[in-house]
Amino acid sequence: MNPAAVIRKKRDGASLTDDDILEFIRGFVDGGVADYQMSALLMAVFLRGMDSRETATLTRAMVETGSVLEFPGLSGAKVDKHSTGGVGDLISLPLAPLVAANGVYVPMISGRGLGHTGGTLDKLESIRGLRTGLDPDTFRRVLGETGFAMGGQTEDLAPADRRMYALRDVTATVECIPLIVSSILSKKIAEGIDALVLDVKCGRGAFMKTEADALALARELTRVGTLMGKQVAAFVTDMSEPLGLRIGNGLEAHTAVDCLRGEGPDDVMELVEVLGAAMLCLGGAETRFAQAAERVRAAVFDGSGLDRFRRMVALQGGDVSLLEAPERLHAAPVSFPVAAPEAGVITGVDPYGLGMAVVELGGGRRRAEDTVDPAVGVVLHVKRGASVSSGDVLATVLAADAESAARAAREWVLPAFAFGERADSSGSLVRYLITGSGERPWQGPESWDLPTP
Amino acid sequence: MNPAAVIRKKRDGASLTDDDILEFIRGFVDGGVADYQMSALLMAVFLRGMDSRETATLTRAMVETGSVLEFPGLSGAKVDKHSTGGVGDLISLPLAPLVAANGVYVPMISGRGLGHTGGTLDKLESIRGLRTGLDPDTFRRVLGETGFAMGGQTEDLAPADRRMYALRDVTATVECIPLIVSSILSKKIAEGIDALVLDVKCGRGAFMKTEADALALARELTRVGTLMGKQVAAFVTDMSEPLGLRIGNGLEAHTAVDCLRGEGPDDVMELVEVLGAAMLCLGGAETRFAQAAERVRAAVFDGSGLDRFRRMVALQGGDVSLLEAPERLHAAPVSFPVAAPEAGVITGVDPYGLGMAVVELGGGRRRAEDTVDPAVGVVLHVKRGASVSSGDVLATVLAADAESAARAAREWVLPAFAFGERADSSGSLVRYLITGSGERPWQGPESWDLPTP
Repeated sequence: MNPAAVIRKKRDGASLTDDDILEFIRGFVDGGVADYQMSALLMAVFLRGMDSRETATLTRAMVETGSVLEFPGLSGAKVDKHSTGGVGDLISLPLAPLVAANGVYVPMISGRGLGHTGGTLDKLESIRGLRTGLDPDTFRRVLGETGFAMGGQTEDLAPADRRMYALRDVTATVECIPLIVSSILSKKIAEGIDALVLDVKCGRGAFMKTEADALALARELTRVGTLMGKQVAAFVTDMSEPLGLRIGNGLEAHTAVDCLRGEGPDDVMELVEVLGAAMLCLGGAETRFAQAAERVRAAVFDGSGLDRFRRMVALQGGDVSLLEAPERLHAAPVSFPVAAPEAGVITGVDPYGLGMAVVELGGGRRRAEDTVDPAVGVVLHVKRGASVSSGDVLATVLAADAESAARAAREWVLPAFAFGERADSSGSLVRYLITGSGERPWQGPESWDLPTP
Repeated sequence: MNPAAVIRKKRDGASLTDDDILEFIRGFVDGGVADYQMSALLMAVFLRGMDSRETATLTRAMVETGSVLEFPGLSGAKVDKHSTGGVGDLISLPLAPLVAANGVYVPMISGRGLGHTGGTLDKLESIRGLRTGLDPDTFRRVLGETGFAMGGQTEDLAPADRRMYALRDVTATVECIPLIVSSILSKKIAEGIDALVLDVKCGRGAFMKTEADALALARELTRVGTLMGKQVAAFVTDMSEPLGLRIGNGLEAHTAVDCLRGEGPDDVMELVEVLGAAMLCLGGAETRFAQAAERVRAAVFDGSGLDRFRRMVALQGGDVSLLEAPERLHAAPVSFPVAAPEAGVITGVDPYGLGMAVVELGGGRRRAEDTVDPAVGVVLHVKRGASVSSGDVLATVLAADAESAARAAREWVLPAFAFGERADSSGSLVRYLITGSGERPWQGPESWDLPTP
């Protein structure tokens, strides 16, 4: 394989063969293909595209640079969920134990926050002592004992992806559907899963700002996942507002505990039920979607979800006493109220601005190597549609010091609130479902159409 | 400057500002911009293009990464010629001394052969002892004493170009007009010249295969050179046949001596006169093109060109006795005749195949680090339009051994000859002239229109 010839072919708009792709990616990991050749190919793919077959081969090539997790002792289906990232998106934390409590294994490998979006690992690590850097044996043991496990990407899972992502980040080749799809799916397929539920977010707080872009990504994720022999269901969901009322790592872990106690916010619980029901159906634990959703709710109310979560926390080294007093997950020194400067109706709360407020407070990352403060963040007191009087508290900023609190409040939190006379209807939270058999607007359980595997 | 932001801008088809370009190139040389970022930008430029202003700024940025030669003791104009490369293209060797003999300085920095095209430095070095790796002081001294000097690119002349070219070669970003133009012009402008004559070749033996592509390159070279404040005249010339009758380093040096003795082949001499006359006009030594061409011819017949060449060879350490017996420049052990397999008319001689024959014989380079054998090559006995009988000798292969001779003859030399019943007219050698004031088909001296500077 001549790397320059492969680059030239894509540069000129041709399709790459399976061998072209497999050998290029292998060469990249072995050293026969240099970083500067990979970045030239990434730019050519960005500008020329890749079809679904090429993207599936790329994904397979990336998986094959590492090992695939195996769970020889587990007899049940293994299903995971992936979100493309939003603000207040703590769904994975209550979702995984609630699905596990219903007999479907969830071997979840997650990432860290970057920019305005948070990451599941950071939220989990707000629970003092909890380790997410699990070796494969520990991961398997936690999964076997609790039905789910939550770890970080290891050196050996799709190593090409980690190196390719690092290059994409500094060569302006991030926002490219074939590269996004292969990055997401390579990591998920390396988990050894049977099926995957995707939450593709759209709106100001999401990576995909428009419904059209989110649909395009969801379609390609589904197409490529299906080509790779996995059952895939992708939901397009709204991220024009933050999820829940708390944004920040410990704050969101607190909300996760609320959800498992039956006290979760409506929007978060709606997503947990829809995504969880889809996972149960894909995992073969239930055939009818409405019943599957009911079983997710039941695992909240009978406490089995919280019990699973507590056992996972204990097995991964976390302080379980924090689950009894979750407000201690965000014990920041300073609470700074943000007051309404005028009376009116809140017509929108910009999730991007709130995500950036958390970054500003030290709770997020500008660069991958930054560390995060788990205690800081923003608590919303109102969301879209609320009528407020001048001076009402809109939000509380939790900060390490008064100065950063005031700055985040002034620069990001207050400007995130839009005032007007009347708030438009917010539209539905779950917008579309895309599966191997087609796509449709989501209108509740009757929209589900996937055959049980 | 954020390198990824500059890459993103070009990726999205926008124009880069002067600061974007200057800082990116400076960063590339200083280490603030990584190779993989440069290769991503190069691919974005390949697919999105650059306008003439951007290309001029890129060229300036590349020049500014090194130093520009200065000639404080020289009062006359300094003019150089650059060819985009062909087969049998030894023009620089007789051209430079003939122009110098007419009072215009020629500070010529040349390159080496790569692939099927030869390089001036390799041809010069077939003269035993001749050094082309000249330090700036030696270069200036030779230039001052003989009116011309022929050296190689030093570490300090446009160093960004050398590193960018190395990257382009392995990332499929070579065939891109803005990158070609900036690479050519940065090296030439670093020579400290006042004006430049360009020989843009088109046809099977050239980099640009079609007249349209060659015209596009010639136009952009002229436009960018003019934007940079240099007088530029670009000729588009034919490379559908090799120039002259000898291909190979020592063989072409032999032809150069023939030219300076008044015994050069017609096609080579035509180009020498046209390009030389243009250099004299741009250098202000002559106002009328026909007179300038006459002065080039005069420097052949009065021996002043050969005298200058001999002095340059001596000053650069070469064995001047070889100029008296130039057949010793290609004293290869094996002479292998290639016979016509059939009777007919030669309808074409493929320069690419003959260039590759020289590579096969060890006289060219597959890769930049290869060394070359100066003695090997191909001598043509017939060219397009000749009628031959079966068994007539078409060419003689000069080789280091019988085996390589036979292989080159079989695989490259014989297949280079096309047989038919009638050869089409070959068309003119010099096709177009492009200057800052426009472009026109070349119809002889009356086509010249550049004002004297």
